[in-house]
Amino acid sequence: MFVIFDAKNKMDPIQIKPIGIIYSPYKKATGIPIQGRFKDDVEAFAELKEEFQTGLKDLDGFSHAIIIYHFHNETKEQVTAQPYLEKEEHGIFAVRSPYRPNRIGFSIIKISRIIENRLYFTEVDVFDRTPLIDIKPYVEFFDKREHVKSGWVEKHFQKGIPKQTIL
Amino acid sequence: MFVIFDAKNKMDPIQIKPIGIIYSPYKKATGIPIQGRFKDDVEAFAELKEEFQTGLKDLDGFSHAIIIYHFHNETKEQVTAQPYLEKEEHGIFAVRSPYRPNRIGFSIIKISRIIENRLYFTEVDVFDRTPLIDIKPYVEFFDKREHVKSGWVEKHFQKGIPKQTIL
Repeated sequence: MFVIFDAKNKMDPIQIKPIGIIYSPYKKATGIPIQGRFKDDVEAFAELKEEFQTGLKDLDGFSHAIIIYHFHNETKEQVTAQPYLEKEEHGIFAVRSPYRPNRIGFSIIKISRIIENRLYFTEVDVFDRTPLIDIKPYVEFFDKREHVKSGWVEKHFQKGIPKQTIL
Repeated sequence: MFVIFDAKNKMDPIQIKPIGIIYSPYKKATGIPIQGRFKDDVEAFAELKEEFQTGLKDLDGFSHAIIIYHFHNETKEQVTAQPYLEKEEHGIFAVRSPYRPNRIGFSIIKISRIIENRLYFTEVDVFDRTPLIDIKPYVEFFDKREHVKSGWVEKHFQKGIPKQTIL
C-alpha cells in the first residue's frame, strides 16, 4: 500500500450541479440493454437548463456523444461487483456497474437531432429522469482505439452480441 | 426553450469524493498532448485511497481504461470555447475543453501495470495531482464505435495527426 497523499487538499469533495435531466422510456430496469448500442430502436432526450442551450452549438456535426450522469436510482457503493454478463465478482473499476464509488455513469449515445435545449438520442441505457452532468463529443481520432484487450468481457462476445438486458 | 423540469429534486447538487490522485509528469501545460494517445512515451499513475485498492482487481486484463477526473487547475466554466485545434468557438458540449460546466475530465489511458493501489498508465493528458473520480474498463464492444462522424474535428485529421500540444 503506497501512501504519498501529500496533496491532501486535492481530496476535498467536489460539488457537481446537474446541467439537465435525461428523459428516457426506461422507467424501470426491465428491458434496459447492458449497453445502449445493443438496442437502437429506443429514443430518449436530454433537456438542458436554459443557460446551457448555447453549449450544444455544433454538436449536431457529430454522430455520437459521451454523456456523463449520476446513477440517481442507486445508493450502494461497493468495491467489487458482479456484472450483468456473469456471476463472477470483479473489482468495481473493472466493471461498468452503477454500484461504484461516486455513482458516475458514462454512456456513448447516438445523436438523432438537437432542438433548442434538447438533445434527442438513441442507443439508450439510462433510466428516466437521470441527472446529467456533462456531454462531450465522441471523436473517432480520440476515442476509437485499436489493439484493445477487453479482459473478462471478451469471452461473452465470442459468439456475437449477448442478448441480456440488465433485468 | 422547452421547460419540463417537473423533476426538480433531481437537480440537487451531487457531492463527489475523489477516489485518489493522478501523479503525472505534467506540472505545467507545456508539452501536454491534445489527447493522450498522441504521445505514448510518458507514464503517470493514479494512486487510490486504501479502501479502493480491491476495486482494481481484474482491471489488468484490459489494455485501456477510462478515467474520469476533475480539472482542478481551472476555475472558468463557459458555454462556448475555442478548442486547441482551431480558433473558432464551439458550444462547450461540442468540444473537450476543460472550461466546461462541472469541469469533469474524461481520458482513455493505456494500462501499463497495477501494483497494490497504484494504476500505472501511458497515453497521458492530465496535469500532475489531478483528483480522480472514477475508473472504468474500456471495452471494445461498448466503446469502439463504427460509422462515426466527428464534426469540426475531422478537417484537422485529414493529413494525419496534428502536432499541437495544449500549450
